Amino acid sequence: MHLSNSNIKAIAFDADDTLWRNEDIFIHAQDEFINLLLPYHDEAYIRAHLGEVQIKNLEHFGYGIKGFTLSMIETAIELTEGRISGNEIHEIIQLAKCMLASPVDLLPNIERVLSQLKGKYRLLVITKGDLLDQESKLSRSGIADYFDDIEIVSDKTSDAYLQILQRHQISAENFLMIGNSLKSDVLPVLDLGAQALHVPYHSTWDHEKVTDDTLLRYPQLEALSDIDQLISWLNSSTRENRQAV
Amino acid sequence: MHLSNSNIKAIAFDADDTLWRNEDIFIHAQDEFINLLLPYHDEAYIRAHLGEVQIKNLEHFGYGIKGFTLSMIETAIELTEGRISGNEIHEIIQLAKCMLASPVDLLPNIERVLSQLKGKYRLLVITKGDLLDQESKLSRSGIADYFDDIEIVSDKTSDAYLQILQRHQISAENFLMIGNSLKSDVLPVLDLGAQALHVPYHSTWDHEKVTDDTLLRYPQLEALSDIDQLISWLNSSTRENRQAV
Repeated sequence: MHLSNSNIKAIAFDADDTLWRNEDIFIHAQDEFINLLLPYHDEAYIRAHLGEVQIKNLEHFGYGIKGFTLSMIETAIELTEGRISGNEIHEIIQLAKCMLASPVDLLPNIERVLSQLKGKYRLLVITKGDLLDQESKLSRSGIADYFDDIEIVSDKTSDAYLQILQRHQISAENFLMIGNSLKSDVLPVLDLGAQALHVPYHSTWDHEKVTDDTLLRYPQLEALSDIDQLISWLNSSTRENRQAV
Repeated sequence: MHLSNSNIKAIAFDADDTLWRNEDIFIHAQDEFINLLLPYHDEAYIRAHLGEVQIKNLEHFGYGIKGFTLSMIETAIELTEGRISGNEIHEIIQLAKCMLASPVDLLPNIERVLSQLKGKYRLLVITKGDLLDQESKLSRSGIADYFDDIEIVSDKTSDAYLQILQRHQISAENFLMIGNSLKSDVLPVLDLGAQALHVPYHSTWDHEKVTDDTLLRYPQLEALSDIDQLISWLNSSTRENRQAV
């Protein structure tokens, strides 16, 4: 792998679990959902079935809290063979509204990192999920002004990244993507000949997981908060076989 | 009102009920929903309550089928005081999946209109709703290639239009928006000093309705399918007090 970081002119950040905590909100909601269904089934079975329904529904509902909520409701009905009560389903809808209103909890040091990069690089956010929810989080985050462009996409495929680069007239060789998901933030970007840095989050949704073997093969930053590490990576010139910084 | 149509370089179209039928899908789903709840309440009461829940939930869920479905479920629970069965709620989720999979039914003559404008004007789609659903409809419509840019926004405010014009470096004086909703497609665009043409659809969601008095004050095209009418409007030079073409 031949990387010349000094070429980088535009840096894009994933949002959920890269700029702010997000998976925790889903994990908490899932725990509440499991509590609701414990009178009917054991935890492992509920968790596995919800995961299946979620994946199956991605093609209909896409990513985001609204689709997740419809999947929770569908799971609850299926696992209780329709015996779940209206009031219990109402609790699931309330759970969705709580998720949507959760405070945006920035990861450590994010503002310091962005303020050091601002002006030196063109800064973007590229995130997937529900449009209104992502816009609302960005607006509530207080960091929207650091970014030159915001892109909310339905899925992070190579083609989606290519369209964004073309729209903003950014060459792949000048582009770096930073995010917590190898599947969404790293692999499709490397496919285009651009660069990507993986910043793992402490928990990853199963659907976004790749094997440990794959994990080790790509440039990784331990934490986005370590700006010195990032700056040193950005300033380094061509280096062979970079695995991590 | 002083309009010089010859300045127009970019034409943006709303999608739902302007390029293809959409409200009919919601009306059909709503009828099915009302049938489901008729054992509990009368039609007018169900309809009114669903409308209220929908408007109240817009701030949480935004526009689109997923939010509408969550509102139907919430309404069903409230109107039955939780007595609605899981199986009945499952029918509502199935209704959502049917809505999302509905064929895209283009309005008459749309392809002919687009093919005559293509090359002479920069053509855009500006639509609101769920990202994945709008992308999917555009892709299934078969007309995506006529457009230079697609913009899916969470709400059609003047500010949202301004951001789009700035992003694409289009001056307000060179911009024309065409759509079926005075509230979303016409008024916010005229506010920016750009031009807008209202093409009424046979049915409008209450939330998008304005008074008849407002309706009559803005440039209106009877049907988008009448390309001669549109071309004559586009080619006409400055004209005072244009009300309709």
